[in-house]
Amino acid sequence: MSELGQQLRVDSVRSSAAANSGHPTSSMSAADLMAVLMEKHLRLDYSDPSNPNNDHVIFSKGHASPLFFSMLKAGGAVTDEELLTFRKFGSKLEGHPVPNMPFVDVATGSLGQGLPISVGVALAAKKLDRLPYRVWCLCGDSEMAEGSMWEAFEHAAFNGLDNLTAIIDVNRLGQTRETMVGWDLDRYVKRAEAFGWHAIAIDGHDDDQIDAAYTEARETTGRPTVIVARTKKGKGVKAVEDLPGKHGKPIEDAEAAIEELGGERDLTVEVAKPDGGGREPHRFDVPGGDMPSWELGEEVATREAYGKSITALGSIDGAVVALDGEVSNSTHAEMFREAHEDRYFEMFIAEQQMVAAAVGMQVVDWKPFASTFAAFFSRAYDFVRMAAISRANLRLSGSHAGVSIGEDGPSQMALEDFASFRAILGSCVLHPSDANQTAQLVAAMAERDGISYLRTLRGKTQVRTPADESVTIGGSRIAHDGDDVAIVACGIVVDQAVAAAERLADDGVSARVIDAYTVKPIDQEAVRTAARECGAIVTVEDHWPEGGLGDAVLEALADADDRPPVVKLAVREMPTSGKPDELLHAAAIDAEAIAGAARRLAKAGSPA
Amino acid sequence: MSELGQQLRVDSVRSSAAANSGHPTSSMSAADLMAVLMEKHLRLDYSDPSNPNNDHVIFSKGHASPLFFSMLKAGGAVTDEELLTFRKFGSKLEGHPVPNMPFVDVATGSLGQGLPISVGVALAAKKLDRLPYRVWCLCGDSEMAEGSMWEAFEHAAFNGLDNLTAIIDVNRLGQTRETMVGWDLDRYVKRAEAFGWHAIAIDGHDDDQIDAAYTEARETTGRPTVIVARTKKGKGVKAVEDLPGKHGKPIEDAEAAIEELGGERDLTVEVAKPDGGGREPHRFDVPGGDMPSWELGEEVATREAYGKSITALGSIDGAVVALDGEVSNSTHAEMFREAHEDRYFEMFIAEQQMVAAAVGMQVVDWKPFASTFAAFFSRAYDFVRMAAISRANLRLSGSHAGVSIGEDGPSQMALEDFASFRAILGSCVLHPSDANQTAQLVAAMAERDGISYLRTLRGKTQVRTPADESVTIGGSRIAHDGDDVAIVACGIVVDQAVAAAERLADDGVSARVIDAYTVKPIDQEAVRTAARECGAIVTVEDHWPEGGLGDAVLEALADADDRPPVVKLAVREMPTSGKPDELLHAAAIDAEAIAGAARRLAKAGSPA
Repeated sequence: MSELGQQLRVDSVRSSAAANSGHPTSSMSAADLMAVLMEKHLRLDYSDPSNPNNDHVIFSKGHASPLFFSMLKAGGAVTDEELLTFRKFGSKLEGHPVPNMPFVDVATGSLGQGLPISVGVALAAKKLDRLPYRVWCLCGDSEMAEGSMWEAFEHAAFNGLDNLTAIIDVNRLGQTRETMVGWDLDRYVKRAEAFGWHAIAIDGHDDDQIDAAYTEARETTGRPTVIVARTKKGKGVKAVEDLPGKHGKPIEDAEAAIEELGGERDLTVEVAKPDGGGREPHRFDVPGGDMPSWELGEEVATREAYGKSITALGSIDGAVVALDGEVSNSTHAEMFREAHEDRYFEMFIAEQQMVAAAVGMQVVDWKPFASTFAAFFSRAYDFVRMAAISRANLRLSGSHAGVSIGEDGPSQMALEDFASFRAILGSCVLHPSDANQTAQLVAAMAERDGISYLRTLRGKTQVRTPADESVTIGGSRIAHDGDDVAIVACGIVVDQAVAAAERLADDGVSARVIDAYTVKPIDQEAVRTAARECGAIVTVEDHWPEGGLGDAVLEALADADDRPPVVKLAVREMPTSGKPDELLHAAAIDAEAIAGAARRLAKAGSPA
Repeated sequence: MSELGQQLRVDSVRSSAAANSGHPTSSMSAADLMAVLMEKHLRLDYSDPSNPNNDHVIFSKGHASPLFFSMLKAGGAVTDEELLTFRKFGSKLEGHPVPNMPFVDVATGSLGQGLPISVGVALAAKKLDRLPYRVWCLCGDSEMAEGSMWEAFEHAAFNGLDNLTAIIDVNRLGQTRETMVGWDLDRYVKRAEAFGWHAIAIDGHDDDQIDAAYTEARETTGRPTVIVARTKKGKGVKAVEDLPGKHGKPIEDAEAAIEELGGERDLTVEVAKPDGGGREPHRFDVPGGDMPSWELGEEVATREAYGKSITALGSIDGAVVALDGEVSNSTHAEMFREAHEDRYFEMFIAEQQMVAAAVGMQVVDWKPFASTFAAFFSRAYDFVRMAAISRANLRLSGSHAGVSIGEDGPSQMALEDFASFRAILGSCVLHPSDANQTAQLVAAMAERDGISYLRTLRGKTQVRTPADESVTIGGSRIAHDGDDVAIVACGIVVDQAVAAAERLADDGVSARVIDAYTVKPIDQEAVRTAARECGAIVTVEDHWPEGGLGDAVLEALADADDRPPVVKLAVREMPTSGKPDELLHAAAIDAEAIAGAARRLAKAGSPA
């Protein structure tokens, strides 16, 4: 236990005491591991956060934030005064790290995410930036129970990420009891080795062992290294050391604890600057080109348009990369792979790792597009939620959504994606109905900050949008004009809505069809204009009734001057297998159902 | 390759050909594994689906449904005619298995879920039913990349589930390419052993090796067994065998394939009946008792009320079990553990496995309540989505929701749970504002089918609901009466809304506060009555604006006769750390903000 290690402990105790909350004991177990890292192995210029050669330190155990911030103080990036604002309103030093300040790459605090994200940063270092910086990821032992950690282990080894070092702080004590593995370090070692890693078991409070392990990690090539460190929670303070019931609480007698730890210190560590001087990240030469477009009336699946669009975008913008969850011949991300193999990442059936890798890549300024079946993004929902807290710029594309996929049945039908993605702060939710819309929206996603979600379709739809018509995030278009009733639709059901409008016209009912290709932010002006001019609205979506297009339309009208009746058509019973048309009919979101609902509303609203 | 194995192949080819879609090649690789299982090791009475001693067969690789249904035909549970309705509209034989018929326990088809659910069934067998039935789970090798599989491996070993056998069909080919592991069976073996399993590598087309492996699995005690079987995708038909590009497609020349496989057969297997005759599942003796109640005006956290309520429920109903994700001293599920240790399951930091275990337990008719921080249910969202397709009866409780948790910051704040759980078919979403509501809602959840979600609070709230007032799923209560403006609130902000109403009363504005403790199904009558009588509505929630209480209120009014303006107060910027009151204020969902919004609306609506 070095002086620096003790300082990190003292500062963890002090900041948690000042906050009267936090996790000092989970910080104290890892203090020696981090002290030796800073003093001997880290290559990071704390005076230059934008240096692309800086190492990255990611705390997968985000609750050890007192330790993380104490390291920033020791590195000179945070003052002692700031340190003591920990967890207070208005402080940048939040309860769990948030990238609202330099040297915090991502938000952690939902366990099992930091390591998968570290895999993304390390992948970017090796395959994109092609720089020798390293990623050091501190993991808790409790979070080794999260499956996402093993996705990360598998992908890191498969990709030979010898620039990644995971450090498992095996203090054995979780929130309420001992972990399943306890201090049986050998089990972690065997698991890691079986997943293709080099593994080193050490005493996490022995500085020499720690130093040797880091040296070995840096010298190991071809595979990542994990350091499995036996530690004690609350190490250094007898009142809490290795005792249950001390999780997530400030230390009762902080003054005595600080004294026991040898008192306050004010060391500043001279952390080594990155090797390799001013090397710049690799950039991909691109030939340029145009986004694709299609002729009016063509029948094209929007997933195919997605594939062509990201491929074209990859030729225009060398920062664009693509990831897919082993369904690239379905999502059509395979087109990107064929054209830009160096920038394509196969993430296999590991959606959590896929989203996490994308988060990691955008940390170092790449522009990831990640795709799988829309339904399977639900697997990574916590990662998307946390990505928003990380202020990440992600582009996600989900194909095969809704009952219109047909025979595969409900397990493959995303019917909750609008709801779940709308409830992500700063997100946009896009659902183009045709290929030309898709191309323009994909281009717009590349330029947009935050989390952008695009839903594409399995089946073909008719190109109704002229290639030269502007399609923007937040926009919509009128697919059929009229003023007796408005039908707001998106995606597969736009064709149905237009067919319904044509039937209604035969009956003398003039229906306006709004193609709401942006579900969030909904085109409020178009909706309010329709409310005023048409007097009644039917919404139609291949989605559950909750949280989707219908709710977005209702929100747009909530406090508008004109608040006409709105009837929501959506999927209200569990769908089955069948042909797309049979399922659209069974769900009552086909032309017949739309026309029926619109006719009833128009009639109710017409003068007696 | 036995006659039965060939029949299973032929029937997989035939059913997929009749459907013109499906996964015959992924079925053919595992046909011999399943044939030997049925003929020699399975104990299942296909004439008596309700026999509690029946083994369970779960296809984690749900896309091999042609094989699954061909087994049901061979077992006499499905006719050949039914088999050929596969994937057609109206057939029970859907694209992926769905529990709409006997012998299908759960829906699979989102990979990586069948094994974690099998762990739940096996846990119930051993620790609850205490019967010797076994669980046989067929896994794909592609899905071994899902982290949830490793959560299952860890929990199965930790719990000594020697009644569980996983069979990995290592055909090495995924949808677009070879898996990360390929045919390196030893890597699967080493991983499984490192996770505490007995592992056996075999040739999955050698009936003797398969037979011996099953025998060894049945004879292994104290730990689960995995059979790692080297197989060929499309085995038996040269046009597809072990070839890439043949995933998820019917075989082009089905007739030739059937001929190559030796033609159609119509064997019915005499599957062995369960051992142990008519043994009944264990039932827990319970002392009975009453649900807890609290005095008006007491300050109690609803999470504490949850703990007391499930504990009381456990004394009343011996079928109730509790699971928690290693935060039981926060959710207060620890009270249940202390009172009913035999029915408490610690799921550690593995939320996917927790929900899957609950799904497995309800397959055999136990009543699981699973709890963790509300934010961390987002980790298991795909499992909840699939549980709805499984027609599962689950009770989930998420604590520590919203900005009102305070210092821990946004990673721990569920702000999307209403949206995500509302978009689950057949769900209810409950958010009591006080302890007495919580007790009654917990009791109602135990009796309710489908997926019930309860959000509880970290901080204390005042008991406003008399213990003898009826609180029902779908109901609401008036916390403050008035008719100038209505405020619809739930949970932590009910106290704020009442405070706002009291301030408004001082200004001569009479506000009605509706405590909407049921967010789904929202109390439509109460909302419509308020719309009619109050003329304007403010909604308030500690949740993002999308998909929550405000949207539920708007939906209730969408086509009502009275559609007054609605102003939604919700969390619109990324919260930080701080004290609960500071954060409620910063998010503009405190009494001051509510009073301000209500005053503006009431004024706008008042006669000039």
